[in-house]
Amino acid sequence: MAKGKRTSALRKTSAKAGTRPGAALAALIDDLVIGNRILYDQNIVDGYGHISARDPRDQAHFLMSRARAPGLVTGADIMVFGLDGEPIKDDGRPVYSERFIHSEIYKARSDVHSVVHSHSPTVIPFSVTQVPLKPIRAPFFYPEVPVFEIRDAGGWTNLLVSDSALGAALAQTLGQNSVALLRGHGNVVVGPTVRVTVYRAIYTEANARLLLEAKMLGGPITYLAPEEAALMEANLAKPRPGHGHDRTWEMWKAEALARAGKGRR
Amino acid sequence: MAKGKRTSALRKTSAKAGTRPGAALAALIDDLVIGNRILYDQNIVDGYGHISARDPRDQAHFLMSRARAPGLVTGADIMVFGLDGEPIKDDGRPVYSERFIHSEIYKARSDVHSVVHSHSPTVIPFSVTQVPLKPIRAPFFYPEVPVFEIRDAGGWTNLLVSDSALGAALAQTLGQNSVALLRGHGNVVVGPTVRVTVYRAIYTEANARLLLEAKMLGGPITYLAPEEAALMEANLAKPRPGHGHDRTWEMWKAEALARAGKGRR
Amino acid sequence: MAKGKRTSALRKTSAKAGTRPGAALAALIDDLVIGNRILYDQNIVDGYGHISARDPRDQAHFLMSRARAPGLVTGADIMVFGLDGEPIKDDGRPVYSERFIHSEIYKARSDVHSVVHSHSPTVIPFSVTQVPLKPIRAPFFYPEVPVFEIRDAGGWTNLLVSDSALGAALAQTLGQNSVALLRGHGNVVVGPTVRVTVYRAIYTEANARLLLEAKMLGGPITYLAPEEAALMEANLAKPRPGHGHDRTWEMWKAEALARAGKGRR
Amino acid sequence: MAKGKRTSALRKTSAKAGTRPGAALAALIDDLVIGNRILYDQNIVDGYGHISARDPRDQAHFLMSRARAPGLVTGADIMVFGLDGEPIKDDGRPVYSERFIHSEIYKARSDVHSVVHSHSPTVIPFSVTQVPLKPIRAPFFYPEVPVFEIRDAGGWTNLLVSDSALGAALAQTLGQNSVALLRGHGNVVVGPTVRVTVYRAIYTEANARLLLEAKMLGGPITYLAPEEAALMEANLAKPRPGHGHDRTWEMWKAEALARAGKGRR
Repeated sequence: MAKGKRTSALRKTSAKAGTRPGAALAALIDDLVIGNRILYDQNIVDGYGHISARDPRDQAHFLMSRARAPGLVTGADIMVFGLDGEPIKDDGRPVYSERFIHSEIYKARSDVHSVVHSHSPTVIPFSVTQVPLKPIRAPFFYPEVPVFEIRDAGGWTNLLVSDSALGAALAQTLGQNSVALLRGHGNVVVGPTVRVTVYRAIYTEANARLLLEAKMLGGPITYLAPEEAALMEANLAKPRPGHGHDRTWEMWKAEALARAGKGRR
Repeated sequence: MAKGKRTSALRKTSAKAGTRPGAALAALIDDLVIGNRILYDQNIVDGYGHISARDPRDQAHFLMSRARAPGLVTGADIMVFGLDGEPIKDDGRPVYSERFIHSEIYKARSDVHSVVHSHSPTVIPFSVTQVPLKPIRAPFFYPEVPVFEIRDAGGWTNLLVSDSALGAALAQTLGQNSVALLRGHGNVVVGPTVRVTVYRAIYTEANARLLLEAKMLGGPITYLAPEEAALMEANLAKPRPGHGHDRTWEMWKAEALARAGKGRR
Repeated sequence: MAKGKRTSALRKTSAKAGTRPGAALAALIDDLVIGNRILYDQNIVDGYGHISARDPRDQAHFLMSRARAPGLVTGADIMVFGLDGEPIKDDGRPVYSERFIHSEIYKARSDVHSVVHSHSPTVIPFSVTQVPLKPIRAPFFYPEVPVFEIRDAGGWTNLLVSDSALGAALAQTLGQNSVALLRGHGNVVVGPTVRVTVYRAIYTEANARLLLEAKMLGGPITYLAPEEAALMEANLAKPRPGHGHDRTWEMWKAEALARAGKGRR
Repeated sequence: MAKGKRTSALRKTSAKAGTRPGAALAALIDDLVIGNRILYDQNIVDGYGHISARDPRDQAHFLMSRARAPGLVTGADIMVFGLDGEPIKDDGRPVYSERFIHSEIYKARSDVHSVVHSHSPTVIPFSVTQVPLKPIRAPFFYPEVPVFEIRDAGGWTNLLVSDSALGAALAQTLGQNSVALLRGHGNVVVGPTVRVTVYRAIYTEANARLLLEAKMLGGPITYLAPEEAALMEANLAKPRPGHGHDRTWEMWKAEALARAGKGRR
């Protein structure tokens, strides 16, 4: 009951985000808010990191929270941004300095409808070594997981993707892949929906941990074959209630709401 | 008091699962429900993974939840399946796509009365390297822990054991052992009762962690000898209140119920 | 206030343990109960493992819980044992099968007033490799941390120290040291008081983790020198309120009571 | 609401710490109290470790808790110390034996306004090996992270920096850096404010974990360049609400208060 109340409160506040939003938009904003909470609860993001979704009303817009710790985001924090990375309606609220990661990927990739940027911990060591992040259980690592070296794009920087040029260079490195690493900084994960992208962000971290431990055991590693990955992706894409992404989304959502305001896992 | 109430609620709902179940069946269903909760609470299963028990009324049937995250399973979710992997009474509820792991093992192994399939994290690295998962503290690793390579059985697949043929191939790899690894996927653990099988699933993960760390230290490792393992198994099998499996089951159960609805450990 | 109530409840039940106990005995039983809870809360013991204290009324007796998961022990569970490992007053309650670890160490070491036996996880890898557990921060590792190979004492066993002969062999391996490892099984830690022994058990695990990680970094390691260890031990032994063992005991006690009935850390 | 109440209670008690403190002093004491709680909640300090701040009323004074576990510190525990390491007004309360770490660093470094001493776990292995703690994400590791070998300063000691001479030797090793390691013991972190220093202590531990895992992967590592570190430091220093240190401080504070009295993360 407590959970039900909390959920409807989120929905209520989220109604303020757009003008007369249809049910589909309200549901998307709810997913975006829950996605923030899940990524925080699962230790994928901390005080930093963000998740966005392409606006279903206008493919040249996307939805993302104002600059705020993801564990605290509510529907009222969701703002609309253009593909230049700027808020459509600037109401003076602080915005994420790395919003250009999102805008430039939406510009380059019409198939992408959600983007997560995080500093999830076990992924970073792969960004600073020559060891490629290859798939053990993560089918979406194909074709590959490239590493974005910001020095090649911007020379000496503070490592933040804080303008359109850096965002475009990152989008170019990402190419047609689903995950790219940012050297010494974090990663970016993209997907067709908020739920799939949240799942991918969580499994990117999990696969990095599995690969680190397999490397510690030593010797040759049997990776997921591209043919297997393609069949896994096809299976996950089938809409079946109680299966695949739905089942984990419901579990992660329940966990995140149960721990809301009590600190992370 | 809160715990007592919660437990009796589980018993009440579980009464719906069969028609006029005897006390033994009700107790088994309670163990199955608690087993789900323990495996979730101990981070052996997450949104995926399942545990089943052979039906004491009919050796050709087994009991398992409908497709549901294990942390949420109640007695009302428990369904009866046949050795073809299909529900005896199909009421339209979604079922686990990998139920054939269970049906084929029950078909091949009359001594098995419970089966756990999980993706417990530290076991997976052993499934993709050439390093055998050998016993440091887990006596039930004898004779050995084989690895099931689904490519040998089904060519390119989505890695799921989603039909009887794949289940039968896995059961053949398992042989007379208690644990088998599924390459890049997870593991299956079997035993004579729900409680023993839950203990084995938890200690399979624990032993994998010990072996990984012993490998990191380097040099020769003294494994549990087969003679020692046999004596440990014999000792654990003695029914003594307050000892062995009973003591850990009571602790894990108390922990799982205390954290129910609050997210995992 | 809740905590105060809980503590006095423990004291009340502990009063039942002996006949007309003096204040010193009541305080010792309280420490023993709290020691059980702390070791559980700090993940040093799980469903298994035990802690005992020599009986201040009779040096040939010691106090220990009946066979029970340490996280659940109360004062009413504390029983009195003799140096033969048997209860002084057998009331039919189940007792730990490894009580001979305690009885034989108390017999061999008059300076020892508390004994902990645990399976704390990071210590076990050192028991099955040739890598000695040397001190980085644990001064009580001097003179050394020997490994007890039960095969040398009892041939093929179930690894449990379940009679006086095995207990005596372990006590001989321990010698004048404060910690001994049991191959493929766990460790035993001894000390002059319950509080010091609980601290040593926790820091034995912590030092094992530090040494494992230092080994992973590679190259030569600067260990604590015996001269430094002696000065640290002397400093810790000084009774000063708010310092040393007292400060950590109060913190661990507060944490254990705050999480009582809610599962471990 | 519960949180608001708790916070104002802290403020109320902190008012007792000085005589007629201005708002700035009250805010500093609040930060110091919250800093203690955050460092405990984030597992940087346990029962030991301490944080101090230079007194804004007198540069030759600094503020620090009486000897107490950091997770329990309130405003009433904050005392004023001189650069000789002794309390300005000795009221008999026990004080930290390693207060000379703070006094000697404030004496040597006029730019430092806050000091943290901790035993954060993953940093210690770097203090006992020849592997330098280099920056992957921690810009404040430049120029370098030196290791203080107390044997060079004091011969055989109990490893505690318990007098002015040892504190001065540590301050000399620290030099103009922001972090120094204490061999086999812990680390010291300094900064211009309490909030920046707490952030640095948390990211020192996080960077040590990243570097340990990168070393486990093997091969060459791309470290943060000094030019990049300088730009990151400049960016973090810009005061912008909702960004940088403010955003993480608010998150860590919320987490620490939510878990207050319930044990650490």
